[in-house]
Amino acid sequence: MMHQISSSPFNNAVEKLASLPGIGNKTALRLVLQLLNREGFEIEEFGKAFVDLSNQIQYCNSCFNISDTETCSLCSNTSRNNDVICVVENILDVIAIEKTNQFQGKFHVLGGIISPMEGIGPNDIKIPELIERITNTKPKEIIMALSTTMEGDATNFYIYKKLAHLDVEVTTIARGVGIGDEIEYTDELTLGRSLLNRIPFQNTLSLR
Amino acid sequence: MMHQISSSPFNNAVEKLASLPGIGNKTALRLVLQLLNREGFEIEEFGKAFVDLSNQIQYCNSCFNISDTETCSLCSNTSRNNDVICVVENILDVIAIEKTNQFQGKFHVLGGIISPMEGIGPNDIKIPELIERITNTKPKEIIMALSTTMEGDATNFYIYKKLAHLDVEVTTIARGVGIGDEIEYTDELTLGRSLLNRIPFQNTLSLR
Repeated sequence: MMHQISSSPFNNAVEKLASLPGIGNKTALRLVLQLLNREGFEIEEFGKAFVDLSNQIQYCNSCFNISDTETCSLCSNTSRNNDVICVVENILDVIAIEKTNQFQGKFHVLGGIISPMEGIGPNDIKIPELIERITNTKPKEIIMALSTTMEGDATNFYIYKKLAHLDVEVTTIARGVGIGDEIEYTDELTLGRSLLNRIPFQNTLSLR
Repeated sequence: MMHQISSSPFNNAVEKLASLPGIGNKTALRLVLQLLNREGFEIEEFGKAFVDLSNQIQYCNSCFNISDTETCSLCSNTSRNNDVICVVENILDVIAIEKTNQFQGKFHVLGGIISPMEGIGPNDIKIPELIERITNTKPKEIIMALSTTMEGDATNFYIYKKLAHLDVEVTTIARGVGIGDEIEYTDELTLGRSLLNRIPFQNTLSLR
């Protein structure tokens, strides 16, 4: 039990920071003390950034990426391929995939995955919007790029079934031994999947 | 270089969180995304906590501890001893010392330590206020409880000299091998200090 400071604005700020995942009460205390070393207007600007976040945040009306404009820069980029949509959980995944420079299609950000444990059903995330988008824009391929967890698998399967009656190919990103990883330290599930989904060696030559 | 999201409220919130010590850009991104999963009013309250912190934070006019009242609960507690003032760097130290239940005097929170490297001089922290407080209230003892760093030592020495002409004893907390620490793993400076400042064994018996 932490000894409490008799200041409600202080304790309230500590509590808010400690509500973030991975930030404990003691770290939050230190961070608020560090904030208090700054000028008053800087602390105020710190807070206003989150008030603004709550009031001004907008999502792309097509892919649900975070965007200041109605349609995000990725969706409005005409040099990108409309025929392929990559389905991801959140914008961190968009960033990670964009960094590879290996994908020139469009994205669809679900904003979560199906998780009965946390009470998140298909209609709580952008799955109905995905189905509608695919029905309307008729892309050729949907790449599922969700985490390999039970929730990710369930989401994959749900979307796959929902798309069965539409003329669209559903693929998932390859799972296997990471580049630079040692075979002996790779977990058996991943190594097994790597063996099962092996590809002709000459297919890898163009990637060098 | 992190791929940027084209949303200024989002990027601004990430930047503010990343300005806190120990929170990198990627962690800040994750935390803001986590915040965005909350209801709008909750995000707003998160921000308002820091706006309030900036506008409403008050310090005890005697010891400079954070307090909602003009004089903090420790300073206004009449059962505490006015004759001993423990000088600390920040309120985390007050909390740590209070937890020991070994100190019944008053505190003085400097709000920092002298650090020429960071441009912090004696007048940037509550040293003038400490001298004035001691001159006015004439306590018998000042316990210096600052970190054993170059900056802590410099601050100790500066205050010690400033108090030389006043009739007050200046002590510092004991340095030595921590309780539960193994002798063989204790650094030589600490172990040396432990030997130098050894005390009669019978003095420790009352602590058992």
